[in-house]
Amino acid sequence: MQEPGLIQIQQIVQFVLEIDKLKGVLRKVKPVGEDRYENTAEHSWQIAVFALSLARTLELSVDPERVVAMLLVHDIGEIDAGDKFVFAQDGWEERKAAELRAVERIFSFAPETLAGFLLDMWKEFDAGETQNARFAKAIDRSMPVLLNLSNGGGSWLENRVTYERVCARVGPEIEAGCPELWKYVERQLERARQKGFFAETQG
Amino acid sequence: MQEPGLIQIQQIVQFVLEIDKLKGVLRKVKPVGEDRYENTAEHSWQIAVFALSLARTLELSVDPERVVAMLLVHDIGEIDAGDKFVFAQDGWEERKAAELRAVERIFSFAPETLAGFLLDMWKEFDAGETQNARFAKAIDRSMPVLLNLSNGGGSWLENRVTYERVCARVGPEIEAGCPELWKYVERQLERARQKGFFAETQG
Repeated sequence: MQEPGLIQIQQIVQFVLEIDKLKGVLRKVKPVGEDRYENTAEHSWQIAVFALSLARTLELSVDPERVVAMLLVHDIGEIDAGDKFVFAQDGWEERKAAELRAVERIFSFAPETLAGFLLDMWKEFDAGETQNARFAKAIDRSMPVLLNLSNGGGSWLENRVTYERVCARVGPEIEAGCPELWKYVERQLERARQKGFFAETQG
Repeated sequence: MQEPGLIQIQQIVQFVLEIDKLKGVLRKVKPVGEDRYENTAEHSWQIAVFALSLARTLELSVDPERVVAMLLVHDIGEIDAGDKFVFAQDGWEERKAAELRAVERIFSFAPETLAGFLLDMWKEFDAGETQNARFAKAIDRSMPVLLNLSNGGGSWLENRVTYERVCARVGPEIEAGCPELWKYVERQLERARQKGFFAETQG
């Protein structure tokens, strides 16, 4: 019979090794100047640092610990469900159900109390109803925009996405979670439009 | 003249785009079952989740927010200095100085107060004197061990590292930061030794 602490550690190790698979899930944007698509694990790291940085600097009324925890786990469902391009037009309901099934499976590797906490974080982010979740979503939505702006249009040109579609898709969520950030991003998008970083017609 | 909030956001965006380069820094271990080396950005994500999970479950007297912040930034110096194999025998003093120069350069993209906070996190981790830093180091040291254990020996066999060298190098730091975790890892290392996961003689 093992000690309780050791059993819990073993469960956490199994969980942490299961989520290792997120390193193999590819997204649609590329790291700046690299000729490969970024994976969801490294994306999750970058937005956690971004959120922590903005929350501390702007002294927003958000809980950085909770926001970071949400961002670290919010994409884990992609291990089973894959990445879905943010500009896809439909299939979002089925997608949400598939991601929920995935995180329920994956979090169940962890000890029960931890699994409950992780699922709470995932659901809070997904629902987007709290200020913490809205801020986390604003960060998650803006990061690929910032990467595409640094990559001459990146996935917008590759996938024929227009300026209007980008603004309509990411604008409301960024603005709702962090109006100051949207003010900045909006100006950059306008400049990028003048430089031809978008498709002329939606693909 | 721009508003102060916008200037700070611009600085944070520059910082977050500068650290994008961490996605291109390769380490010596591979993700489970993948035929490529992991990069430091995805590693940083995984240990942040690992630390959060262990800290919450074992109810350790550590501050999860601080530990996670440390782990998210502790390797950023590798952008200039590269990854150094943990089992290298010498050059650690020069290495530490190079990493400090690197983070001073990189954090200076961020607004001053944030840069100060990030440097504090980096220095606290590096010094390893607080309980939070010791716990963070234990997590950082144990993750590649867990990956190698899942990969039939991985970087230990590739780089001719013995069982004794692994225990001597990572044991004290894991035990100092999280004795329960070392108890678990120690047993797994002993089993792995019986399976031939280590070099017979040190390379």
